[in-house]
Amino acid sequence: MKRAGIIGGMGPEATLDLFKKIIKNTPAKKDQEHIPVVIDNYPQIPDRTAFLYGKGENPLPYLLESMERLEKAGVDCLCMPCNTAHYFIEELRKRTQVTFISIVEAVLSDILKSKKEYKKIGLMATDGTFIGKVYHTPFELKGLEIVDFNDKIQQSIMNSIYTLKAGDFTKAVDIFKDVFEKIVDEDYDCLIAGCTEIPILLPYIEKNKNVDIFDATESLAKHVVSFCLDQSVS
Amino acid sequence: MKRAGIIGGMGPEATLDLFKKIIKNTPAKKDQEHIPVVIDNYPQIPDRTAFLYGKGENPLPYLLESMERLEKAGVDCLCMPCNTAHYFIEELRKRTQVTFISIVEAVLSDILKSKKEYKKIGLMATDGTFIGKVYHTPFELKGLEIVDFNDKIQQSIMNSIYTLKAGDFTKAVDIFKDVFEKIVDEDYDCLIAGCTEIPILLPYIEKNKNVDIFDATESLAKHVVSFCLDQSVS
Repeated sequence: MKRAGIIGGMGPEATLDLFKKIIKNTPAKKDQEHIPVVIDNYPQIPDRTAFLYGKGENPLPYLLESMERLEKAGVDCLCMPCNTAHYFIEELRKRTQVTFISIVEAVLSDILKSKKEYKKIGLMATDGTFIGKVYHTPFELKGLEIVDFNDKIQQSIMNSIYTLKAGDFTKAVDIFKDVFEKIVDEDYDCLIAGCTEIPILLPYIEKNKNVDIFDATESLAKHVVSFCLDQSVS
Repeated sequence: MKRAGIIGGMGPEATLDLFKKIIKNTPAKKDQEHIPVVIDNYPQIPDRTAFLYGKGENPLPYLLESMERLEKAGVDCLCMPCNTAHYFIEELRKRTQVTFISIVEAVLSDILKSKKEYKKIGLMATDGTFIGKVYHTPFELKGLEIVDFNDKIQQSIMNSIYTLKAGDFTKAVDIFKDVFEKIVDEDYDCLIAGCTEIPILLPYIEKNKNVDIFDATESLAKHVVSFCLDQSVS
């Protein structure tokens, strides 16, 4: 069994959600059958979107510091429950010998393995994820198109994410519910919950909208568990 | 702001619960105001109760290994969301310079600070916690009495805990609901959820029983947050 390392705290709720999904996706009948995980919940990592807007401190040195802490703890793989932070993944990969499991590659692989054929992908993510082309680049390489929502929708998505980060869960759900009503009418084949705050809000919206939604955090959790149990992802 | 270290995985669900309560009890309006936490989720630590029954491997070397991993990660305090493991706390404290915040001392302090005067304490905990006198010793020093439940009740409590650890949440809730009906009729002034699996089940039982319940995990979370924010516990 291998030990997973999580560069976390972006935000803490999203890190909690990934940890919960790792536990849920592990076929364990007692404590000892669960995988060892070291979580570095480091909320002091500067805001990723602010940096990509050219307005904030560079998160990279903090991400490297967290990665080093996890390497010292002897982890066998690394991951980070923050889609926007994946703007830096190649920089991080260059500086470590440890396998870095990408949330973007995890959900991309799940979409490509799906029985349905998806071509146009609606991405619910931060402005930073769009600016940094975190999804565009790897998805377009596989012939998939990332659909941009209009500015109003994108602003409301950002608003729901930062309201949740501010600790106002109820208000965040309300904002997300409203914007999701508009998102369902847009043109795409499936949606990705591509900011780790979104899957925390998803259970509170009406699901019978006939929309296929991929939860990037769930994909990441499954890939991490499979890696640590030395299995292929089912 | 100080960094907290969690010796976790006993079980993973209980570790998740403590992490959730640390986040909830932190007055943060954005990611960066949350406290840094390193969680060593190490479910391979051998069963504490089995060892205290003389039937299993000694968890101490594993606890020390986890503690060392967290020390290397630079944590400023340590804690462990497993009441039974507190049988070893003095051994662990002897071998570290880092402040070790005890779950037992945290809930004891909350009970002593309470407006009501509690003398007889009903303890919902593992057999190991009873055998190891994890609560008896510190509580009796403060003039508080730990009430033992009858064998049938204790067996059902153990059954609910290990059913939850085995991943069968619904069955664990059912068992706990039934035994809680019996527990409410016992003679005590307040109850302690003194196994970290119990607070996971508590929200699913009827609360209007007019029983004061102290959640040891919640107490620990508050004490850890206060320590890391350099505040006194409110």
